[in-house]
Amino acid sequence: MSILVIGSVALDTIETPFGKRKDILGGSATYFSYSASFFTGVNLVAVIGDDFPKKHIGLLKSRGINLDGLKVIKNGKTFRWSGSYKYDMNEATTHSTDLNVFETFNPQIPERYKNSEYVLLANIDPDLQLNVLSQVKKPKLIAADSMNLWINTKKPSLMKLLKKIDIFIINEGEARLFTKQPSLIKAGRMILGYGPKHVVVKKGEHGCLLFSKNGFFSAPAYPIEDIFDPTGAGDTFAGGFIGYLAKLNKTHTEHDLRKAIVYGSVMASFNVESFSLERLKKLTDKEIQARYKQFKEFTHIK
Amino acid sequence: MSILVIGSVALDTIETPFGKRKDILGGSATYFSYSASFFTGVNLVAVIGDDFPKKHIGLLKSRGINLDGLKVIKNGKTFRWSGSYKYDMNEATTHSTDLNVFETFNPQIPERYKNSEYVLLANIDPDLQLNVLSQVKKPKLIAADSMNLWINTKKPSLMKLLKKIDIFIINEGEARLFTKQPSLIKAGRMILGYGPKHVVVKKGEHGCLLFSKNGFFSAPAYPIEDIFDPTGAGDTFAGGFIGYLAKLNKTHTEHDLRKAIVYGSVMASFNVESFSLERLKKLTDKEIQARYKQFKEFTHIK
Repeated sequence: MSILVIGSVALDTIETPFGKRKDILGGSATYFSYSASFFTGVNLVAVIGDDFPKKHIGLLKSRGINLDGLKVIKNGKTFRWSGSYKYDMNEATTHSTDLNVFETFNPQIPERYKNSEYVLLANIDPDLQLNVLSQVKKPKLIAADSMNLWINTKKPSLMKLLKKIDIFIINEGEARLFTKQPSLIKAGRMILGYGPKHVVVKKGEHGCLLFSKNGFFSAPAYPIEDIFDPTGAGDTFAGGFIGYLAKLNKTHTEHDLRKAIVYGSVMASFNVESFSLERLKKLTDKEIQARYKQFKEFTHIK
Repeated sequence: MSILVIGSVALDTIETPFGKRKDILGGSATYFSYSASFFTGVNLVAVIGDDFPKKHIGLLKSRGINLDGLKVIKNGKTFRWSGSYKYDMNEATTHSTDLNVFETFNPQIPERYKNSEYVLLANIDPDLQLNVLSQVKKPKLIAADSMNLWINTKKPSLMKLLKKIDIFIINEGEARLFTKQPSLIKAGRMILGYGPKHVVVKKGEHGCLLFSKNGFFSAPAYPIEDIFDPTGAGDTFAGGFIGYLAKLNKTHTEHDLRKAIVYGSVMASFNVESFSLERLKKLTDKEIQARYKQFKEFTHIK
């Protein structure tokens, strides 16, 4: 079952202890779509300027990602993000966020996307996320990501969104910011109380926590010796996570969710091995399955 | 099989966001012994001053901990540590460390301790750890803890110690400090190269990592909503971890080590629920087994 994803398609300028890159392919919807495409079909909704390199379009198309919903603005400038990572690579410092064509984006969902049963609202303005949601006819599973910017500036819209979705994905620092709780366990349970059926708290190199009404799951990260660039790890995680659930295409059990989280973690582990989508471009299904198997072995208690 | 433990028995002054306590029972050997006593016998080696409250001695004795090796220095002052924790409770800020009677401590292992097969060298000067080790006849399993102070001031002694032990237990920040590696995965493997058969990297609320020559295990922490005081969590962890292995009293497999780590995590999860040993004092075997079972369930992938 295909996933409808709305989010950013961007050009990133990134500095890590291992190097610097200017205007490389990035964006939440880009990472999500590419990652999810290993599991299922993807219908992308986003906006770019006509400065966006054609080769990137070709790359997304090569994975079968449907781009009918990718709007190109004539004389527009693509969304740009610039950031850097310190020594421990756990948190990005944002240097600049130029929304550009996203500033006036009014997403129109193509007719053939409107029957999508799986929807991923990647990290963009919660009002845009709500707008998209209102155009989808009968979604079966809706997941959303967000960030500190929206928690700080658009909390009412975010709270409204949380009542309409099944899975909310957020990172550790944002969960603490959102709830003003130092305890992640309390924070996760508190967000669950805001409406979603499940909350995933991402903790970077420390893995993630899944909170459900009647369940709790703690997953480590796949052990990577050299994290080269963590940009997009969360979106790549979401791609594997929701991608696997959409592939199953059935009412998921707690154990389906856990397996989905492991697939998400595995996808993220590949992504952090290089800048942009460089590692994912070379990724094979065999490699995904091998790491999935290893992941289970690394956490197994007899 | 009883464990010989050498470490500190101390009086702590602690401030957390939840309160402040002065001169409460603490010390690495105290927490370790009390925790391990739920699994096996413990022979303690430490030194205190005659200012040490008798009720604490009674408490340790009530758990069957052998105190033949607890030296009391007349007119001596017990080791004191003072520290505080910030909002996220992940790291202590040390305000003062008064070694007092530990400054001139020359540990003499009681004759009947010398045949101990399980040895835990809790966090004290690595020269004292080496000294104790030289007095033990035929140890079957030796584990040691350390800290940033000794990494910074006694690295050669620590490196010498690492060649003689089976399990080295260290926390996240110390592992990075020790190896100058931002990646914990690299740091753990590098320390493994210094000599020990296994390295455990403790990550507080994020659990721990176990590195072995042919194995890797990642365990989350047991999810505690309110961490009241993390002091002694690492030593309580070590108590459950080594306590379980000593109780097994056989050549351990990778899976025995994993189970032992879960018992350690469970013991630590109780300890952080109150100041000093307050929670452990009320702890029952039934509660330990219940959390062990829950822990397995929280990490299980079908």
